Amino acid sequence: MMDEAAWVATVRRCFLERQADIIRELERLDGARRFSGEDLATPGGGLSRPRVLQDGAAIEKAAVLFTHSIGAALPAAATERNPHLAGQPFQAVALSLIVHPRNPYVPTAHMNLRFFLVAATLPRPLPAHPPAAPAWHFGGGFDLTPHYPFEEDVVHWHRVASDACEAHGGFHAELKRNCDDYFFLKHRGEARGVGGIFFDDWTRGGFNASFAFVDAVGSAFLRGYAPIFERRTAMPWGEREEAFMLLRRGRYAEFNLAIDRGTRYGLQSGRRVESLLASLPPRAQWRYGWRPAPGSPEAELTERFLPPRDWLSPADEP
Amino acid sequence: MMDEAAWVATVRRCFLERQADIIRELERLDGARRFSGEDLATPGGGLSRPRVLQDGAAIEKAAVLFTHSIGAALPAAATERNPHLAGQPFQAVALSLIVHPRNPYVPTAHMNLRFFLVAATLPRPLPAHPPAAPAWHFGGGFDLTPHYPFEEDVVHWHRVASDACEAHGGFHAELKRNCDDYFFLKHRGEARGVGGIFFDDWTRGGFNASFAFVDAVGSAFLRGYAPIFERRTAMPWGEREEAFMLLRRGRYAEFNLAIDRGTRYGLQSGRRVESLLASLPPRAQWRYGWRPAPGSPEAELTERFLPPRDWLSPADEP
Repeated sequence: MMDEAAWVATVRRCFLERQADIIRELERLDGARRFSGEDLATPGGGLSRPRVLQDGAAIEKAAVLFTHSIGAALPAAATERNPHLAGQPFQAVALSLIVHPRNPYVPTAHMNLRFFLVAATLPRPLPAHPPAAPAWHFGGGFDLTPHYPFEEDVVHWHRVASDACEAHGGFHAELKRNCDDYFFLKHRGEARGVGGIFFDDWTRGGFNASFAFVDAVGSAFLRGYAPIFERRTAMPWGEREEAFMLLRRGRYAEFNLAIDRGTRYGLQSGRRVESLLASLPPRAQWRYGWRPAPGSPEAELTERFLPPRDWLSPADEP
Repeated sequence: MMDEAAWVATVRRCFLERQADIIRELERLDGARRFSGEDLATPGGGLSRPRVLQDGAAIEKAAVLFTHSIGAALPAAATERNPHLAGQPFQAVALSLIVHPRNPYVPTAHMNLRFFLVAATLPRPLPAHPPAAPAWHFGGGFDLTPHYPFEEDVVHWHRVASDACEAHGGFHAELKRNCDDYFFLKHRGEARGVGGIFFDDWTRGGFNASFAFVDAVGSAFLRGYAPIFERRTAMPWGEREEAFMLLRRGRYAEFNLAIDRGTRYGLQSGRRVESLLASLPPRAQWRYGWRPAPGSPEAELTERFLPPRDWLSPADEP
């Protein structure tokens, strides 16, 4: 456990620094409001550091939440693939963020980074079938949800994601596909946005390589998002664009409440509700029977941008 | 099957008439807008008759949806308690309605009535354990979700519910408790509203008695809701009341998307998404860390009105 205790401390330090960087940059992009929030000690020496900016000049709501949870006994529901880990002490370190901008031309962005560690490595006596997943893993990723997308923004976003992946092993195509598969509203037959990368149960190359990759993903987020935000935040918009953004945010709420695994698990397991639902849009709308006019920019979103494709290969235009 | 085919026709006629009554009365209450919607034929002779009023003078959105579904083979997922019914032909007739008023002093109201019939009555050979639920049943109920409640309204609502139940067997206390249990946001430790009645797997007294009861519930809805709507719809309100209503609607969306069984089942089973999500509020808000001021009307809702109690016994004041 010596190494593993050091791992938790390393990841915690890294995620806290990343949180501070992102907050600083989002405050710069907003130009008016600051983040606020208190530190909450959690059982066993854990820490919850929620930071939220509401009613900003350019950001309607952003939440950048750090949590380090320490548990005495892993619930059975969390260890379906590894039943021998039930009841073992565990730690989870997570950084999650969402940005709901004011300007409909600026995309909503989301990132999540997490590290999970169960104290036990292998049970004694050894199980007949070795565990299917390791007793530690990383997970996370980031994805972009534009309302009025620009191709150069989408290409830039995926370029940054690809660069981060390719520098650490060359698995961008796989992680992009994971993202397209996960952030999908099956009941609408529609992607949540234009995707990004998504990974779970990540242990490739061992702790050091995995951590370096996750750190790279965390650092890539702002390189991907900030230039898009800056390019679009001064664009004028009107009621039409605002209304469309609110309808799209309704679908975002559908995904988070009805589909997202983390939210669903959290709702059932009694996690702090304000943190769990901090990703929900500040305002959202639903309109019965709404359809975009053929040929409109609103139709272009669903027809040309949401169907998953390889944005980095111009030949893949559908 | 002779009787059962006649049952479906009887229920269908009754629910369609009820839909027309409710639409007429809601249009009268709104005073400006009409409901609209088309009839959609569904496989096997079924009918979907969605009717929606949006952007009314007094009603921001109301949906009154009739559906008669006819299926060739019941999916296994729908028959967990009666596996021998999987694959059997079935019919479902349902009327569901939601009213999201404009005025924060007018409560949101919801009703659902449904009849479910599986063609098979008992399997041959007979199962070792007889089926836990019958091959037909009714379900439904209604509940009220005020933002700024008035005690006389809440008492009236429960009085009408109680009268409907007591005239058909005297089980109001049980059905009120069902409602309090079901419309509860466990993650917030908070009821969705002030309740009403809720029942499922309902076969008491056989088809005729059950149908008469369900018909009485359908007719009670407007006797319960219309007087409350009329008493409150002309009350002046301001930004504060509007903002609070939108936050409460956020919780309504949480319930419908994350908790409601019908919505969850529908999202997974590929039902028509516009109908399935017609109950969602036209506008909703979420605000991180929001708390009502102590002693405010907003605090009174959660402290005095939402904790379930017997509104018809004055002695039960908590």
